[in-house]
Amino acid sequence: MPLPAGFRAHAGAAGLREHGDDVFVVVADGPSVASSAVFTRSLFAGPSVVLSRENAAGGRARGVVVVAKNANVATGDQGMADAREVLERAAGAVGVAPEELLIASTGVIGRRYPMSILRTHLDGLAGAEFDADALALAAAMMTTDTHPKTASVEMTTTSGATARVVGIAKGVGMVEPDMATMIAVVFTDAAVEPGVLDTAFRGAVDDTFNCLSVDTDTSTSDTAIAVASGVAGPVDEGELRRALEAVCLDLTLQLARDGEGATKLLTVEVTGARDRDQAKRVAKAILNSPLVKTAVHGADPNWGRVAMAIGKCHDDTDIDPERVRIVFGDLETYPAFPGEAELERLTEIMRAEEVTISVDLGVEGGAADGSCTVYGCDLSREYISINADYTT
Amino acid sequence: MPLPAGFRAHAGAAGLREHGDDVFVVVADGPSVASSAVFTRSLFAGPSVVLSRENAAGGRARGVVVVAKNANVATGDQGMADAREVLERAAGAVGVAPEELLIASTGVIGRRYPMSILRTHLDGLAGAEFDADALALAAAMMTTDTHPKTASVEMTTTSGATARVVGIAKGVGMVEPDMATMIAVVFTDAAVEPGVLDTAFRGAVDDTFNCLSVDTDTSTSDTAIAVASGVAGPVDEGELRRALEAVCLDLTLQLARDGEGATKLLTVEVTGARDRDQAKRVAKAILNSPLVKTAVHGADPNWGRVAMAIGKCHDDTDIDPERVRIVFGDLETYPAFPGEAELERLTEIMRAEEVTISVDLGVEGGAADGSCTVYGCDLSREYISINADYTT
Repeated sequence: MPLPAGFRAHAGAAGLREHGDDVFVVVADGPSVASSAVFTRSLFAGPSVVLSRENAAGGRARGVVVVAKNANVATGDQGMADAREVLERAAGAVGVAPEELLIASTGVIGRRYPMSILRTHLDGLAGAEFDADALALAAAMMTTDTHPKTASVEMTTTSGATARVVGIAKGVGMVEPDMATMIAVVFTDAAVEPGVLDTAFRGAVDDTFNCLSVDTDTSTSDTAIAVASGVAGPVDEGELRRALEAVCLDLTLQLARDGEGATKLLTVEVTGARDRDQAKRVAKAILNSPLVKTAVHGADPNWGRVAMAIGKCHDDTDIDPERVRIVFGDLETYPAFPGEAELERLTEIMRAEEVTISVDLGVEGGAADGSCTVYGCDLSREYISINADYTT
Repeated sequence: MPLPAGFRAHAGAAGLREHGDDVFVVVADGPSVASSAVFTRSLFAGPSVVLSRENAAGGRARGVVVVAKNANVATGDQGMADAREVLERAAGAVGVAPEELLIASTGVIGRRYPMSILRTHLDGLAGAEFDADALALAAAMMTTDTHPKTASVEMTTTSGATARVVGIAKGVGMVEPDMATMIAVVFTDAAVEPGVLDTAFRGAVDDTFNCLSVDTDTSTSDTAIAVASGVAGPVDEGELRRALEAVCLDLTLQLARDGEGATKLLTVEVTGARDRDQAKRVAKAILNSPLVKTAVHGADPNWGRVAMAIGKCHDDTDIDPERVRIVFGDLETYPAFPGEAELERLTEIMRAEEVTISVDLGVEGGAADGSCTVYGCDLSREYISINADYTT
């Protein structure tokens, strides 16, 4: 999958991990570059997030450096100096100012970058080929991901030409975004003002990455970045928003399916809420309940655990259990208890690779937008194995 | 372990489960009975909680009926009628008014009580021996508990005699109390006014059961009850509070150690917070993080995950990562990174059956009471097995 027009990219192996690429640099050279970025709200946000937040502020960042295997978090003043040096050397190699680049890191927390191998690698970039495609970039930033994640959508520019949105993402554990999540980078060749890109990208992120949870844990390093090269010409705002949302949703579903140890995609749709915040709170309570997740893993249509999870939202006193409806797939389980005849169909629904739980809260006077859909996965023994045995 | 003086109790097998006792009734006959009770805040609280809340209001409940294997939750109007009938028949059998009894149920959600076997059992109680001890009662209410949980403490009455507090508890999954948790019943023969008992019991519950979490899921049926028979005479308020707290803490630790699939007791102590609420919020974020829990399971001193969990409390903007200290056992891991020499000791600390993580937040101007200790367990493959395979 090629990047949109106007980008050059290099993925290479600096040696942070034993096999495969572990650093990439991508940059847009055109005159009308725009960018948008959202970051983790963690109190322990690392130097990469701090520096990128500064450099993203003007909406004119041209590119990104991503370092895999090491999050460079909780590494003190030296960690900040290391991050600045990486930005400077990368910027020097591709001929832009350090302030025009963003940086994202992912991996172990609490260890310094191996600076000597990073220096050697970055200084060697000046003479390298910059022809990496989206798949190569996505592969270079994987941690426990089982496969690289890319997505692409076409748009039509106002002059009738074709523009593209191409996104890449990583992150299968420590995933419960509240503002951004994991690392996602979205490229487009559309020409767009930074303010317009920012509004469209934040909206798309809110409905996709921010509705994803693998394990309720929020990374210290999460970053979602969009960069527009402008080469393909202007697109309509609505068209841009739809394309960004389609790419981000596609990546979100890939991340959920590849959640650590996941065997199923779990989608929870809540409707009939007072407002979207309430719908999201209830949907997340269901999606994140270890008892719901293990029931889904065991293909057990345990709607009682869904009721339990809704019941945890006890500050939402306008939710009346007698007005709640719980549906597995297309079969209502509460209050219309499934009979013997429906048990076979229920079992079939639960055994599928994608399970959807729909809840109508029936809140009186609920808003038209009182709904939210969230994405996650089941909880398996494999999640425990990955995380009990994964070294610090 | 005998109950305190002034109680008579019966545990029997109504047939709700295949083997063993599944119903118990305990009642205090004396003239100066007092009681206190706290319940789940779940929106889906079942008829047992609704009825017990009514009957506990005056602080003069004399006893409790507990039904195992079936929570009688989300069972509609019929479930409420069934719960009333169980209370009436049990009260009739022991010769008290139905309003003087509390009821607690635990087990599957969304199925009606098997009323015919319950009727037969309760009507047969009139001629039964009432000589069950604490262990028999605790065993009769187990679900996935691996052993019955009891605790006992002695007090000295104001006249120099001995009074006792004896408690029983169950609950190893769906445990994250916010007001009460699981089912716990505490008996004492001390003579105490309902208001005094209530204050002392709620204080004890807040520092013990409400600081316990196995899996972040809050039961729809959780109930903690204290009943005083008054037979042993008055005790000092402070003595009562200390005894209640000791019994509740003992039971809390037993519940944490027996958490579903648990191999280790995990204690998290947070100090140096702005106030107790902040300390508890941070402590729970650490205790409930699946990545911290799996690291503890794998004996991995992964303090980076503890930093991550603290970082999730991003609304607590007065927490400054540079002032935070993280200690495993008695060894500081952040900001004083452990050296090679300490790794062996760290590994030893992590391999023990009890792991304590201490965090000093160092919040400037923090209150003297800005601390909280919470109790939980590791997360193992066995938790998944129990809950993926446990039938609705």
